[in-house]
Amino acid sequence: MTEADFLAALRALPLHPGAGGLADDVAGLAGLTITTDTIVESVHFLSDDSPEDIAWKLVAVNLSDLAAKGAVPQAVLLNYPCGDDEWDRAFLKGFGEALTTYDCKLLGGDTVSLPVRALRVLSLTAIGSDAGPVARSGAKAGDGLWATGTIGDAGAGLKIASGIEGPADLLAAYRRPTPLIAEGRTLAPLVHAMMDVSDGLLIDAQRMADASGLAVSIDIAEIPLSDSYRTYVGDDRWARIEAATAGDDYQLLFAAPADFAPPVPVTRVGSFAEGSGLTLADNGQSIDLPCQLGFQH
Amino acid sequence: MTEADFLAALRALPLHPGAGGLADDVAGLAGLTITTDTIVESVHFLSDDSPEDIAWKLVAVNLSDLAAKGAVPQAVLLNYPCGDDEWDRAFLKGFGEALTTYDCKLLGGDTVSLPVRALRVLSLTAIGSDAGPVARSGAKAGDGLWATGTIGDAGAGLKIASGIEGPADLLAAYRRPTPLIAEGRTLAPLVHAMMDVSDGLLIDAQRMADASGLAVSIDIAEIPLSDSYRTYVGDDRWARIEAATAGDDYQLLFAAPADFAPPVPVTRVGSFAEGSGLTLADNGQSIDLPCQLGFQH
Repeated sequence: MTEADFLAALRALPLHPGAGGLADDVAGLAGLTITTDTIVESVHFLSDDSPEDIAWKLVAVNLSDLAAKGAVPQAVLLNYPCGDDEWDRAFLKGFGEALTTYDCKLLGGDTVSLPVRALRVLSLTAIGSDAGPVARSGAKAGDGLWATGTIGDAGAGLKIASGIEGPADLLAAYRRPTPLIAEGRTLAPLVHAMMDVSDGLLIDAQRMADASGLAVSIDIAEIPLSDSYRTYVGDDRWARIEAATAGDDYQLLFAAPADFAPPVPVTRVGSFAEGSGLTLADNGQSIDLPCQLGFQH
Repeated sequence: MTEADFLAALRALPLHPGAGGLADDVAGLAGLTITTDTIVESVHFLSDDSPEDIAWKLVAVNLSDLAAKGAVPQAVLLNYPCGDDEWDRAFLKGFGEALTTYDCKLLGGDTVSLPVRALRVLSLTAIGSDAGPVARSGAKAGDGLWATGTIGDAGAGLKIASGIEGPADLLAAYRRPTPLIAEGRTLAPLVHAMMDVSDGLLIDAQRMADASGLAVSIDIAEIPLSDSYRTYVGDDRWARIEAATAGDDYQLLFAAPADFAPPVPVTRVGSFAEGSGLTLADNGQSIDLPCQLGFQH
């Protein structure tokens, strides 16, 4: 089954009220915000990525989901396949660094042994403070669509990690994503809907619009690109579509009134309207959607 | 690294107070009891086990950890690798059955796609009510060691699942373990220490003794065997050692005063004393420990 079909089937099971219909990246229970993410070797990370970076990423992608709800991370549970000594030690180093950096404590977990040559599958469950009602479904017609930071850097970094030479800061964006916890806390009380950009700006914007029962339009000319990205990949339409469909940004994407005065640096990249679906423009001129809106995994 | 080494290394990281030093199968947070377990194809289940049974088992092994603390299951998060349509549908059927049977709701999760021919790795995080202080470390010198139900049935069932003919009830014990939620709730306020038997009676009893800073002795003649087990495997010393070192029982193992009056059917299989380590007897006669005390995974 595809993930979408499987998710639809899960919705027919007895759901907890805090599951929010499985429509968001987090759940709520007993005043806590809870999320869980799994990363798979050769799907979400490369076999020769460093274990330190993989550990960092596992923590970061989970904390990013909490950040997108304005929740403060408290604790994590780790599901880990023990194996190679050197790999495990390096993983622990990166894992400890990430926990310390984000002041997050280890609460529990489970270790298993994997058969020889099995692909590594790692899960983390992260628990944060109560997040309040910043669902991805709260966008209103007339809202602007806004993003923090720059888009596409990690996607370019993945190419560099795969062996093509390129700038260190793009590689770092792929290897060491930053969960925007402080930004999330600041934005959460002010916005109508928020989520992190994990699979690509276009696909995630479309998900927010779908969840909100609205249409969303994005002008790719407005998408914030880093100087390194412009130099390494370019600044033409192709490069901008490439940035907007690459995963692993972990920027915050949110809906807020068109006259919203942002308390942190953000860029308005589009707007919501009555209707449904995603439409694209380049400098005001309508353009076709790419075949792939983002990373499907 | 071995699981023990990895766990020791994890203890050097910033731990949450609710982690209890990672010495138990559950953690406590905000009045909740939390546990997580991962099962791996060809380690914890056979590739040709039915997906319904695998789903059931994934839920049951997690709820068994909650049961062993007297916690009532509330909600679960599922980490699931989507793939083959038929497998996924069958899994969902068994997953739904288990949730409904134990009145437990789906709170969230994450689905991923696995590369072709990758082994399935499934995780579940289960959250239950506050459990109180029934750690595995609370046994006192002079306590008896007690177990619910019968021991070894699932281990015999694994052989049957692997292709050797045998009784259906033993096969069912392997395929559809029962988390003893009601028994756990009844026993929790009355006992000094409790855990579930997941890796084998001997290894789990030794873990309880180690956590409690005590020695434990078990008389294998006292180990409760089912009629089916006696008929299928036998009732001699070898069969009793086999039962006591097989995993997947999910019976409750607890420490309580020698004159404890059990409110549910249980069997006294041993006793705790000052000192350390596990010793075995057969009808009062000291016998050697087997090389393997249980399932190491």
